[in-house]
Amino acid sequence: MECTIRLAQSADCDCLMAMIREIAKYHNLLDEVKINAQVLRADGFGREPFFRCLVAELPPGQGDKQGHPIGYALFIFSYSMKSGRIVYVENLYVDSEFRGRGIGRQLMSEVAKVALARGCTKMKFSVAEWNAQPLAWFWRLGAQDKTETAGWHALELEDEALRRLSGDTGQGAGCRVTPGVSQGADSDTGPWGARLEAVTGAGKG
Amino acid sequence: MECTIRLAQSADCDCLMAMIREIAKYHNLLDEVKINAQVLRADGFGREPFFRCLVAELPPGQGDKQGHPIGYALFIFSYSMKSGRIVYVENLYVDSEFRGRGIGRQLMSEVAKVALARGCTKMKFSVAEWNAQPLAWFWRLGAQDKTETAGWHALELEDEALRRLSGDTGQGAGCRVTPGVSQGADSDTGPWGARLEAVTGAGKG
Repeated sequence: MECTIRLAQSADCDCLMAMIREIAKYHNLLDEVKINAQVLRADGFGREPFFRCLVAELPPGQGDKQGHPIGYALFIFSYSMKSGRIVYVENLYVDSEFRGRGIGRQLMSEVAKVALARGCTKMKFSVAEWNAQPLAWFWRLGAQDKTETAGWHALELEDEALRRLSGDTGQGAGCRVTPGVSQGADSDTGPWGARLEAVTGAGKG
Repeated sequence: MECTIRLAQSADCDCLMAMIREIAKYHNLLDEVKINAQVLRADGFGREPFFRCLVAELPPGQGDKQGHPIGYALFIFSYSMKSGRIVYVENLYVDSEFRGRGIGRQLMSEVAKVALARGCTKMKFSVAEWNAQPLAWFWRLGAQDKTETAGWHALELEDEALRRLSGDTGQGAGCRVTPGVSQGADSDTGPWGARLEAVTGAGKG
């Protein structure tokens, strides 16, 4: 079987969204997916895209999936204080019907190629502990597990907590903010006196 | 004490680089920092910046550090399959002389504000386990530790391993790649037959 790997286009978003929902289902998180095809189009294919995406599709003569994406890799150009330009791979997927034929690896290989061409020297991704097989596969590729070796934890702040942080204009030291409107800082200064420099530190880069 | 928070400019890169080296020193990783001020300028202040940065600086009348950055927050607009637009905070730093005055929190608050204005609904960051105080501070802000609750591991592939992946044009299924030059896929197809959909899955989003 042959497949073609190409840059995703706006017209792929319905197919992409269907595959995203398959991943979410696998993670038992379908209810938590807040995006849809329209959002995906706006976020990935405008003037300042929030992500990049490669898709794998079947060439002519492969039945009714011909010309439709059967897999994708979604990635983001990011930055590390140690390494500079890096690439973060958010998603990798291949339709169950077409697995075991090297398409996932080929997608990742092409992401690596695109990233190296843009000057990136590192690829990052997150894998759940229970997902033993992909974890093992990445180890075989030569990946380092920074959670194992350096104790890095992935933290998230969302919705109400994020808005609370953004609107935090308490009574601490007076900080003028430009551009922006907030003045002052909360009197809870956090642990910064001791260890601010390492909150999200360069060490993970 | 008052400070101003503003967008970083190209001219800040020497100061930023000095602060980056302070963070790296704290993590005992100074030898591993591969970037310099010139690289920072090219990567963050061109047509397609790889990162965004806010700096905190002293207003007039604060001695010889006046007008110089005394802290910064470096962040990246990213994407999640669950939440769509998100922001990833790579670095947060305040000069040791000025800690404990709410400047770190004010920087984070302004990042949250910028992120919300761009339609982001989530802030992510990585913290090393041994960095107990910042970890606790983020918990108090309402952050969730996805490594604790969902077992997410941070993986990295760099240098030789990344190049090997990019040049992987082995003898597996034939995949035409466009744009690009590689043909074929390695015969080691990885665990994709069983679990490809979750390699970097939406679950962390």
